[in-house]
Amino acid sequence: MDAKKILSTYKKRGARIETAARVALAGKKDFSLWYTPGVGVAASHLAKHPKDARLMSVKRNSVAIVSDGSAVLGLGNIGPYGALPVMEGKALIFKARAGIDAWPVVLATQDPDEIVRTVKAIAPAFGGINLEDIAAPQCFDIEKRLIEELDIPVMHDDQHGTAIVVLAGLANAAKAVKKDLKKLMVVVSGAGAAGAATARLLLAASVTDIILLDRAGTIYAGRPGLTGHKAELADLTNPRKVAGGLAEAMAGADAFIGVSGKGLLTAAHVRMMAPGAIVFALANPVPEIMPDVARKAGAAVIATGRSDFPNQINNSLVFPGVFRGALDKGVRAITTPMKLRAARALAVLVARPSAARIIPDMLDARVVKAVSRAIY
Amino acid sequence: MDAKKILSTYKKRGARIETAARVALAGKKDFSLWYTPGVGVAASHLAKHPKDARLMSVKRNSVAIVSDGSAVLGLGNIGPYGALPVMEGKALIFKARAGIDAWPVVLATQDPDEIVRTVKAIAPAFGGINLEDIAAPQCFDIEKRLIEELDIPVMHDDQHGTAIVVLAGLANAAKAVKKDLKKLMVVVSGAGAAGAATARLLLAASVTDIILLDRAGTIYAGRPGLTGHKAELADLTNPRKVAGGLAEAMAGADAFIGVSGKGLLTAAHVRMMAPGAIVFALANPVPEIMPDVARKAGAAVIATGRSDFPNQINNSLVFPGVFRGALDKGVRAITTPMKLRAARALAVLVARPSAARIIPDMLDARVVKAVSRAIY
Repeated sequence: MDAKKILSTYKKRGARIETAARVALAGKKDFSLWYTPGVGVAASHLAKHPKDARLMSVKRNSVAIVSDGSAVLGLGNIGPYGALPVMEGKALIFKARAGIDAWPVVLATQDPDEIVRTVKAIAPAFGGINLEDIAAPQCFDIEKRLIEELDIPVMHDDQHGTAIVVLAGLANAAKAVKKDLKKLMVVVSGAGAAGAATARLLLAASVTDIILLDRAGTIYAGRPGLTGHKAELADLTNPRKVAGGLAEAMAGADAFIGVSGKGLLTAAHVRMMAPGAIVFALANPVPEIMPDVARKAGAAVIATGRSDFPNQINNSLVFPGVFRGALDKGVRAITTPMKLRAARALAVLVARPSAARIIPDMLDARVVKAVSRAIY
Repeated sequence: MDAKKILSTYKKRGARIETAARVALAGKKDFSLWYTPGVGVAASHLAKHPKDARLMSVKRNSVAIVSDGSAVLGLGNIGPYGALPVMEGKALIFKARAGIDAWPVVLATQDPDEIVRTVKAIAPAFGGINLEDIAAPQCFDIEKRLIEELDIPVMHDDQHGTAIVVLAGLANAAKAVKKDLKKLMVVVSGAGAAGAATARLLLAASVTDIILLDRAGTIYAGRPGLTGHKAELADLTNPRKVAGGLAEAMAGADAFIGVSGKGLLTAAHVRMMAPGAIVFALANPVPEIMPDVARKAGAAVIATGRSDFPNQINNSLVFPGVFRGALDKGVRAITTPMKLRAARALAVLVARPSAARIIPDMLDARVVKAVSRAIY
């Protein structure tokens, strides 16, 4: 479908999610029970027992999908209205896949303090907060503060949803090419939200040879001008201290994980990789390299983030299950052990990983259940 | 149904509203269209043309029901969790009556600046803002600032929803007792959000003899210590400059409008009124006087805010239609002429007003349509 057709389809449809009543409001009795005077009983009760909001209000099953539109897909800083269709699409997936009542909350501010204040202010009606498409480095501090200050689970999906699904895919890709996951030489292109979290989760899974790249090239300890989260990452990654650009990093690499931008990876880069090369070109909507180009250059396993190519490594495989589990079990924070378990649960759903299939299908009904079970 | 039974019914039900998908998400094609890569087209478009969010996102039909829980029903300042069931009940009514997708936003702050900031921050995904159960006098300034600073309709329902439905009911009550609306001597008990807005709308409808009361008694120009919105109201109302308490105000009154608190009005007060007395005891969930007590004391027309008594004067008759009209017509502010028209539209739905019936039924399918048509 071309862009023009897609746009007219969106305009024709109007909205992709709506609210729906869970009780009848047909007669006076219904009004008396579900509105006044009945609602006064519920109101008085929750004023005294706020924790029961998780039992008898939308809070039991609701997630706010919060974005400031500062890093939407691979499209960049396109603001709240640019972010809105993406968050609405996520709300649709939350409902269709996991039965979760999610609502898009796109913010008219990109100030970190203001974002934290706003999310804290609206938190009472929500059972969880899914941060989305917020740019690095602000996203790290925003998530950290909200996790500390709220009593409901908060997860920046670009970070952890991506990290979990990448780890699951990489574990199976390694099996497909008969290599040891822990010994892979991995290049992560992009040191923003997704790249940083992916590197950290791979480290937690004992993958040690990871080279991260940002626009200035490879990240290594002592690189001039390195500060903040990148300086931290430099101390944790790139044990061979490779300096330079993508070409230097790719020499002999086993796996490329692109969470950066369209068309960044060339056939020449792929040809530099070790045999059995794994290429995850996850930039959305346009990947770092098109699958056919990567294949011709010799890649053995290829994945993208898109629904219209095979091997879709997309956090849609993760966030519905993570929040389903967190809501069901009243979990307050999504920890590293949970993330490792979720990745493993996702990976083992593919009985015999092969180049053609390293990750379960988005439509596989087992996915949400498996991931949600890992959250405890 | 007793309180215990109501509470267990709420707990059993869990939530009264949920989200629902408006598109199918059954196959890869659906994912490609409604999520990635298709959603990238919609995102890029809205980044450039934010106004089209009203055509192709939830914004076309969504309302945030915002409360800080500072003045919930007649229950007082019971905070965001106390407010949550009420806002959720309103969301249910919005959907059931007017097909509007409303979501409860209960705030963990009661600071006016913070409320204004928060509502502005979350506004992009909403087509309208229904402020609810925010205490006076802060509510006046909060609403004013949001109307000025947002490009979507903002209405504090406790003020204007109440004022509209009271005016509609009073117009028909006057007919029922064969009096001229404009010449009624009206006592308004409560000078908070609802009382102040009701007095102002009655003035706009050329009702001139209005006495407002707060906890300290009647409000009149020059009352010691009077400031802010009450000082303004003192200059506009109480032309006979009646000083004193409820008894002084009620002497010879044609109509009592209670938007204050339970049990405030006694049989003795009703007996002081002029023949053909109109008593609107609108405090929720417990009215200022119970209908049977008022009737025995001689009241000719009696109304409450509750669904389980006749003549329910409740803003549920107003807010669904007002926002339906505002969303459909892209109206940016709810003006006084709109409110007067809405009250009239509501009143004329009762063909022959009588003491037994001064206001259309909440379940009357014509109500939303009639009110929404008045918003232009």
